[in-house]
Amino acid sequence: MDYKTMTPKEARMLIREGKITTHTSGMCPGYAQANLAVLPKDLAYDFLLFTQRNPKPCPILEVGDVGSRKLNFIAEDCDIARDIPKYRIYEKGILKGEYEDVSDFWRDDLVPFLIGCSFSFESEMIDAGMEIRHNTMGRNVPMYITNIETTPAGIFHGPTTVSMRPVPYDQIVKAVKVTGAMPQVHGAPIHIGDPAAIGIKDIMKPDFGDPVDIYPGEVPVFWACGVTPQSVLMSIKPDFVITHSPGYMLITDVKNVDLKYK
Amino acid sequence: MDYKTMTPKEARMLIREGKITTHTSGMCPGYAQANLAVLPKDLAYDFLLFTQRNPKPCPILEVGDVGSRKLNFIAEDCDIARDIPKYRIYEKGILKGEYEDVSDFWRDDLVPFLIGCSFSFESEMIDAGMEIRHNTMGRNVPMYITNIETTPAGIFHGPTTVSMRPVPYDQIVKAVKVTGAMPQVHGAPIHIGDPAAIGIKDIMKPDFGDPVDIYPGEVPVFWACGVTPQSVLMSIKPDFVITHSPGYMLITDVKNVDLKYK
Repeated sequence: MDYKTMTPKEARMLIREGKITTHTSGMCPGYAQANLAVLPKDLAYDFLLFTQRNPKPCPILEVGDVGSRKLNFIAEDCDIARDIPKYRIYEKGILKGEYEDVSDFWRDDLVPFLIGCSFSFESEMIDAGMEIRHNTMGRNVPMYITNIETTPAGIFHGPTTVSMRPVPYDQIVKAVKVTGAMPQVHGAPIHIGDPAAIGIKDIMKPDFGDPVDIYPGEVPVFWACGVTPQSVLMSIKPDFVITHSPGYMLITDVKNVDLKYK
Repeated sequence: MDYKTMTPKEARMLIREGKITTHTSGMCPGYAQANLAVLPKDLAYDFLLFTQRNPKPCPILEVGDVGSRKLNFIAEDCDIARDIPKYRIYEKGILKGEYEDVSDFWRDDLVPFLIGCSFSFESEMIDAGMEIRHNTMGRNVPMYITNIETTPAGIFHGPTTVSMRPVPYDQIVKAVKVTGAMPQVHGAPIHIGDPAAIGIKDIMKPDFGDPVDIYPGEVPVFWACGVTPQSVLMSIKPDFVITHSPGYMLITDVKNVDLKYK
């Protein structure tokens, strides 16, 4: 199977049929991939308000209808309970297990949230001639818990997590412009320069992901990260949550380039 | 009293004390004014999702906390039940009355939605050297119900209402850029040119507001309008809703120019 040339819909069908079980990195290049968080309706209002108040760490691509496994906008003929290769279910904040299909666990009160992902803006940065260091080094992007509090909403609150990419001085403006044009996938950086200014003690010791080299003449640039809503969600230990398993995302029908014109 | 030089906070205090009872047009120039819709919590999830799915007609400046008359972000020391000069209360879609103070009607389950307003982008258009025809003619902006359906959410659905401003050919790009930079106050136009293409039969017979002249060499340009969420809300005839009275808005602490950098 050639993951590079199939359409997102073809990829989702193969995932649904159990013929693709791998992580989705590199699949259907040019199309946005989305994080998943499925919550019971009684938590959904507070979480939706949290995303409204914190659009940079929590850029919503779609919120599904209550109880529906179909999506309306970003993925045609999608079954959100089967079209992701690997799911996680958490009960009271504890990982219950990983599943290739969560349709047996689906309930009429569940609301799926699809959240934009930095893969989309990295794709645009690469097209603009920029190097993505963690790609070059074959590593995961470094992520850090900052001292920047999110804006609370109802029961949800907590610190902002950021991802970091080193950028040469003469490309900082370009990095701001390219990513700032894509507010649905985290948008412009939230900090440029001294890590200590946002509470990061050691740039070589990320809280998640892997460290990357920063060369002379480069500055660490920090973007709000989709781990933020996940960690904020987990910290309140809800009775029941379904998420994607890290790296196993929903492949959407939305082209990254079209996220610039929303 | 000089409405041009007082701060938004001073204006809100004078409104709260009953010393300002007029409409708010022209007050505190440079600061954003906001539309108000207050809904019971049981409708708030669907309405918040409706605004998420329809950001152009429903640009949210702030959603308050459930039951709270304070705002957290756009107006310091605000009492949302008293700081607007004139309110309306609707019961089952019928206007119950107009009030200068709705604190006696406040309930623990009410959620205030503050929605951006085209005054903000008009102010930026004027600064950019553009004429706003309805201002020149001393009229209200013309508004039209279109054949463009909003994206439904829960119980909410209905057509998009637009406002229209004539723009000379050589300023169309400028009009798109200036307003496109302000997504929190309706953003870029949703249609440029032939009114029939969006279901408008007679440009000189708006559904709301007043007609304005369109000169040779000018094109009608259409922006999503804040009347959309109001009419969508009213069409479902909820048991209880508080809104501002048209023209009597909340004066916020947010500078229009800062809406470009959100």
